[in-house]
Amino acid sequence: MGAAVLGTGGGGNPYIGKLMARGVMERRGPVTLLDPEELVDDDLVVPAAMMGAPTVMVEKIPRGEEVVAAFRALETYLGRRARATMSCEAGGLNSTIPFTVAAELGIPVVDADMMGRAFPELQMCTPTLYGVGATPMAIADEKGNSAIINTVDNRWTETFARTLTVDMGCSAMIALYAMTGRQVKDACVLRTISAIERIGCAIREAHRDHTDPVEAVRFVTGGYVIWHGKVSDIARRTETGFARGEAVIAGTHEYEGRSLRLEFQNEFLIARDGADALVTVPDLITVLDAETGGPITTEDLRYGFRVVVLAMPCDPRWRQEAGLKLVGPAYFGYDVPYVPVEQRFGSAGGRA
Amino acid sequence: MGAAVLGTGGGGNPYIGKLMARGVMERRGPVTLLDPEELVDDDLVVPAAMMGAPTVMVEKIPRGEEVVAAFRALETYLGRRARATMSCEAGGLNSTIPFTVAAELGIPVVDADMMGRAFPELQMCTPTLYGVGATPMAIADEKGNSAIINTVDNRWTETFARTLTVDMGCSAMIALYAMTGRQVKDACVLRTISAIERIGCAIREAHRDHTDPVEAVRFVTGGYVIWHGKVSDIARRTETGFARGEAVIAGTHEYEGRSLRLEFQNEFLIARDGADALVTVPDLITVLDAETGGPITTEDLRYGFRVVVLAMPCDPRWRQEAGLKLVGPAYFGYDVPYVPVEQRFGSAGGRA
Repeated sequence: MGAAVLGTGGGGNPYIGKLMARGVMERRGPVTLLDPEELVDDDLVVPAAMMGAPTVMVEKIPRGEEVVAAFRALETYLGRRARATMSCEAGGLNSTIPFTVAAELGIPVVDADMMGRAFPELQMCTPTLYGVGATPMAIADEKGNSAIINTVDNRWTETFARTLTVDMGCSAMIALYAMTGRQVKDACVLRTISAIERIGCAIREAHRDHTDPVEAVRFVTGGYVIWHGKVSDIARRTETGFARGEAVIAGTHEYEGRSLRLEFQNEFLIARDGADALVTVPDLITVLDAETGGPITTEDLRYGFRVVVLAMPCDPRWRQEAGLKLVGPAYFGYDVPYVPVEQRFGSAGGRA
Repeated sequence: MGAAVLGTGGGGNPYIGKLMARGVMERRGPVTLLDPEELVDDDLVVPAAMMGAPTVMVEKIPRGEEVVAAFRALETYLGRRARATMSCEAGGLNSTIPFTVAAELGIPVVDADMMGRAFPELQMCTPTLYGVGATPMAIADEKGNSAIINTVDNRWTETFARTLTVDMGCSAMIALYAMTGRQVKDACVLRTISAIERIGCAIREAHRDHTDPVEAVRFVTGGYVIWHGKVSDIARRTETGFARGEAVIAGTHEYEGRSLRLEFQNEFLIARDGADALVTVPDLITVLDAETGGPITTEDLRYGFRVVVLAMPCDPRWRQEAGLKLVGPAYFGYDVPYVPVEQRFGSAGGRA
């Protein structure tokens, strides 16, 4: 649940993520979470994830073995066993996939990820900013097919992996960005799993204490409530291996009479009030159920849902020139300047 | 030139194939042709080829290094050096690509191929009929990108390799169907390179002796002249990584007043006279320049060319049930029965 809040609409379905992680941990026992500082500089860390359109993953549920297959294929190619695995991104599924690998193989999960949120494309992670290569990368499907890719840059990795994913049925398991312990400490977003745990806890405790779960999420993430409303329109298409589309949230409360338009490519990219861009990538946009505070992924959004839209500040590295070039509004084709959420919505709220 | 006759319109441009092979042999010296019987049963043979749309290859000329890169990548993955390389198919480019690899690496080329002609898809080769896997397969482009693919069957190899080829710019270099010497002897079409050499010689000698080069090709291939005419229409589109299209040959001589329609997917698939299918895959259809006897590939066909259409019998294994299932007219969507060329055009002509 906490992971899906940082998943900004993408990162996979949290229910399936929960089922998968629970299933494997019931069979194989609990998983150790490793603080990044516990890594030795030359440890090998191999992140694992699911790739594809979230809309497809909901119906084509992973068996779990395919991610272990991808992980093992990369280890074999590298000729070395990994000390630990890690999340590529924060998200309902992609924060729990590494726990499947870890439980199956008896290795720990590093408390970190490579985005501090979810992004739709493989090259969009902080290691890219540090010159870490995504390849060699392993990709595997549920049928037993697999590939090892080597590319000249991380943008090419995305291109090849995306078309293979489409061929594999719009979802696949991947292992990539093999890093040393030193690289993890320098180039990744640290302690994301703990942050995710705190968000999940805050929601659970609000339910238990009958306090406002939306406010609890806002508080623990240091976010801003930017909209209250009801989903009045939602269009989704599975295109070039992504779930693309837009949702319109008819305002309620102080937003009555206005409409918020959210556009997404797996993740929410931009929130517009008329011509005005309220929030854009790389800052986080998350839709919460107004009642339960639970995050709603882009594939779960339905007409009539009563929601609160939350905006949260991204990792500061995304706001530098190289970060904005990789994941800023212009990359996604939006001709709007990036304005940090704090700047637009004041400095209230404390980051968890 | 001889290779392009068996390339049935595909298999790559013979001019580029000649330039590449000549260039590397001038630099690195001549290449030894190995009779299949010279292979020891457990020798490793790694075929190499170019994959993609011939229309693209004509403009995006290979550097030569990328095919060596693909070959080396597969050797590294297999953890073993190859004794020799081989052609995947007969064709202007794909019969000479192995000579580039062989000259660069100082290994021989086996006198054989895997089709006895050219076919558009990877799984369409005699080793598939014997249960030989196409993977592990290496694919590389001119930019330095590469991948190793492992699939559950050869149809999946085609799927993955085709989309990667499209991503790589519609042409790529591949190494696949790694075989033992025993497998080559059992599962391949033997002595295709010698046959190709005889066809090329026949054309050259006809030019020298001022005899009819078309008749020389017909004689040496055991083929049948099925049409004389002039190209009156040609439509070509680069689609899903293939050169697809159709050509209409307005009849001359005894074919005056009728039109032959040729349809192709890289290679010629069917020749129709009105509703009547004269020749279909797996038999070979080749268009020769009426004057020079030189084969014309599908990407070189132009309006106004005066041509002779030749049909030739395929390897007998293609005519068995499993062969027809893999490459017969039904696979390509034609609802016509396969009739061997000899049956339709009499038993005249001797196979080279």
